[in-house]
Amino acid sequence: MFVTTERQYVQDHRAELLADLDEWLRIPSISAQPEHREDVARSAEWLAAAFRRAGFPTVEIWPTAGQPAVFAEWPSGDVDAPTVLVYGHHDVQPVDPVELWRTDPFTPTVDGELLRCRGAADDKHLLFHLLALGAHLAATGRTSPAVTLKFLIEGEEESGSPHFTGLLKSRLDRLNCDVAVITDTGMLAPDTPSTVTGMRGMVSCQVNFHGPELDLHSGVFGGAVPNPATALARLVAALHDDAGRVRVPGFYDDVLELTAAERELFAQVPFDEADFLRTALSRTLAGEAGYSTLERLGARPTAEVNGIGGGYQGDGGKTIIPSDAFVKLSFRLVAAQNPAKIRPAVEAFIADHCPEGITCRIEWEGDGASPCVVPIDTPAYGALVAAISEAFDGRPVLPTREGGSGPEAAIAEVIGKPMIFLGVCLPDDQIHAPNEKMNIPMLYKGAEAAALLWSRLAELGRPGLADAR
Amino acid sequence: MFVTTERQYVQDHRAELLADLDEWLRIPSISAQPEHREDVARSAEWLAAAFRRAGFPTVEIWPTAGQPAVFAEWPSGDVDAPTVLVYGHHDVQPVDPVELWRTDPFTPTVDGELLRCRGAADDKHLLFHLLALGAHLAATGRTSPAVTLKFLIEGEEESGSPHFTGLLKSRLDRLNCDVAVITDTGMLAPDTPSTVTGMRGMVSCQVNFHGPELDLHSGVFGGAVPNPATALARLVAALHDDAGRVRVPGFYDDVLELTAAERELFAQVPFDEADFLRTALSRTLAGEAGYSTLERLGARPTAEVNGIGGGYQGDGGKTIIPSDAFVKLSFRLVAAQNPAKIRPAVEAFIADHCPEGITCRIEWEGDGASPCVVPIDTPAYGALVAAISEAFDGRPVLPTREGGSGPEAAIAEVIGKPMIFLGVCLPDDQIHAPNEKMNIPMLYKGAEAAALLWSRLAELGRPGLADAR
Repeated sequence: MFVTTERQYVQDHRAELLADLDEWLRIPSISAQPEHREDVARSAEWLAAAFRRAGFPTVEIWPTAGQPAVFAEWPSGDVDAPTVLVYGHHDVQPVDPVELWRTDPFTPTVDGELLRCRGAADDKHLLFHLLALGAHLAATGRTSPAVTLKFLIEGEEESGSPHFTGLLKSRLDRLNCDVAVITDTGMLAPDTPSTVTGMRGMVSCQVNFHGPELDLHSGVFGGAVPNPATALARLVAALHDDAGRVRVPGFYDDVLELTAAERELFAQVPFDEADFLRTALSRTLAGEAGYSTLERLGARPTAEVNGIGGGYQGDGGKTIIPSDAFVKLSFRLVAAQNPAKIRPAVEAFIADHCPEGITCRIEWEGDGASPCVVPIDTPAYGALVAAISEAFDGRPVLPTREGGSGPEAAIAEVIGKPMIFLGVCLPDDQIHAPNEKMNIPMLYKGAEAAALLWSRLAELGRPGLADAR
Repeated sequence: MFVTTERQYVQDHRAELLADLDEWLRIPSISAQPEHREDVARSAEWLAAAFRRAGFPTVEIWPTAGQPAVFAEWPSGDVDAPTVLVYGHHDVQPVDPVELWRTDPFTPTVDGELLRCRGAADDKHLLFHLLALGAHLAATGRTSPAVTLKFLIEGEEESGSPHFTGLLKSRLDRLNCDVAVITDTGMLAPDTPSTVTGMRGMVSCQVNFHGPELDLHSGVFGGAVPNPATALARLVAALHDDAGRVRVPGFYDDVLELTAAERELFAQVPFDEADFLRTALSRTLAGEAGYSTLERLGARPTAEVNGIGGGYQGDGGKTIIPSDAFVKLSFRLVAAQNPAKIRPAVEAFIADHCPEGITCRIEWEGDGASPCVVPIDTPAYGALVAAISEAFDGRPVLPTREGGSGPEAAIAEVIGKPMIFLGVCLPDDQIHAPNEKMNIPMLYKGAEAAALLWSRLAELGRPGLADAR
């Protein structure tokens, strides 16, 4: 079998990627927890140094009002070379419940083909891009990449990217590009290459219900005053109807219903219910009536409880009426829902479900993320599919929709350029959960695909890419 | 004004009661906290010594598998004298949140007519019985009481009396009596004497809903698998209908509906809504439609959420579908509901509301407590009301119902004798809460009433009391 120069390079330099990951993953860059602020800063510095080692002439740490982003740039030097902006993030999720981890969350552990560590998949797997760059230079014989490469790796994605849109707007002069490549997603399976063609957006909040000023004795007062935990449960129960539809008035107003052609594409994606349930560690499917599981995940909005609490939390019983209760809610959005319209609709619904005697306070997590869709008839999308297919030995590349959310839509909105997705996580990587892992061979496939993609995009040139608009 | 010998004795010996309380209250006999085990034992020893000083010929400390009870007995010596068993408890509640106390929780502090200390009301206020005994002997000119007096003062009431029924059963030969007097309750106001004629029972449990085996990413899986927190909220929301009635099938089957005469008595009890809301630290009344607040508290069963939890509990957001969620529920019961029938009814209701894909585990807290009612047409009740009324200068004595639960029903069940309530706490004593206090003049009223009660019961004699059955 013919082996491309890109693949040979990747095979020869695997150890370097794993050694780098071993260093970077040890930094617990949890952006949501203030006690890890210094770690997120260390993570940014580590990444900046890695970009410099890889040869990037311009590497900068961009501070924000929150956690810092890393920017790196390597001009192609060719006149007509397109500029590519690669997006990813270097912060990671918290590790609770830590007792369910079988290895230390921040000690990278290789187990056969798996690399276990918080962040190994989401999103420090983006480090394959450095291996890709080496492969690209080796294969093209160049001393600079065939496209101008810019990397913007943010540090607050796991805490809702509160300063990302502001950062994009304030650095617009440095971020101009012809196409954006998002590396924070995955593929269907090791032998089923795919690319994301849509992501859900999200708004999320904490709802606080406050009843009596202090916890009350449930014998002395029970049955005579409102219980905020009961009221909160009634709010949560009211969020869905029995068909699994969200009952917030106006919630579905802007949802683009799937066309027959789109439903056809969804139906082509291989889906094994038993496999899915195994990956979801769940016993049964559930969701909105009238839609397949992949449609529910990719093309339908949701309301989910992420956390709920209030009253006595210890062992045994304590007969109180709690003073306070809270629920953390997230709403996944699909095109063309708008976070700015969904937030007030949710607020009105909550107000309608807050009974007399209970006061309510809603805390939103940032501005939320818009949903996005990728057109699949553009030269950039064609280049991406060709590069991925070559890295996967000619297998067809399926379009998928991602259920997750990120700041990607903001990139499309602010930068105003086409966006494509190249990420190589797998559905069972347990991102956000204990025992997160990364399939190591997928890192090599990602590196090969990226190396090939830069060449494909360079062949198109700026005029060829512009046809995409 | 004519002053009884009982009242004169009480007035002359006030200082002794306060000096005794000052010693006893300093012992932090918190039964729920293992680190106070020795303190509960010291409290029992202090009380035993006090009984001996008062003249009781038999005083014993009765160990249990948990904390010790104190038993004291003083035979009347008269052939036909009835035997009275007085119940109370010498353990106290924990003091959290300690930062809300304005004085040290275990330093008794006299502030005008108030004695502030954890346990000053609940239930070390029972010490008025020693002053009562002196008054009784002084007024009757006897060297032993006119009734045979037995005291059983337990040490685990504030941790659910887990060994109390067993203790009663194993000591039945020592506890035989003609009437039981419970001293662990209160009255409506200093100028409104009253006595408890019913207490609610209780069963309580923790319900655990388990969904996916681990927390899942709510983007990757949200909308396609069941969320246990949502399912739990739907269960809690289903517990009550819109009229505030508990929806567990069969829940009301054994509830004794209030008669017109009983509702008339409830209506006579003074109730000020603004006062109640201030005491309840609440902004509005709530509860079962068709009943007054006092009826809801005293004569109607409830279902309350004492605690709820699941998923992410920290600051900010975490976009997960939680693996687990729990709710702590307590059900207050009224006569003639039976904990042994309510438990399976609740279990069936929960099973009906546990959706496919969620597994459920229910943990009950012990066997629960039965509700109890005091018949108000017995000679013992007549003697009690007469004694209290005399101590309160002839004021009428109102029957009340207590919303709380305790081991009293076990006494009635195991001993099989009538039960009456003589306790002199007040509604604003803040039992179980920070800054617990006791109204000192109420202690003297209690001592007078008890001294008079022993004489009244002796006048009835055993045959007269037996008519009560």
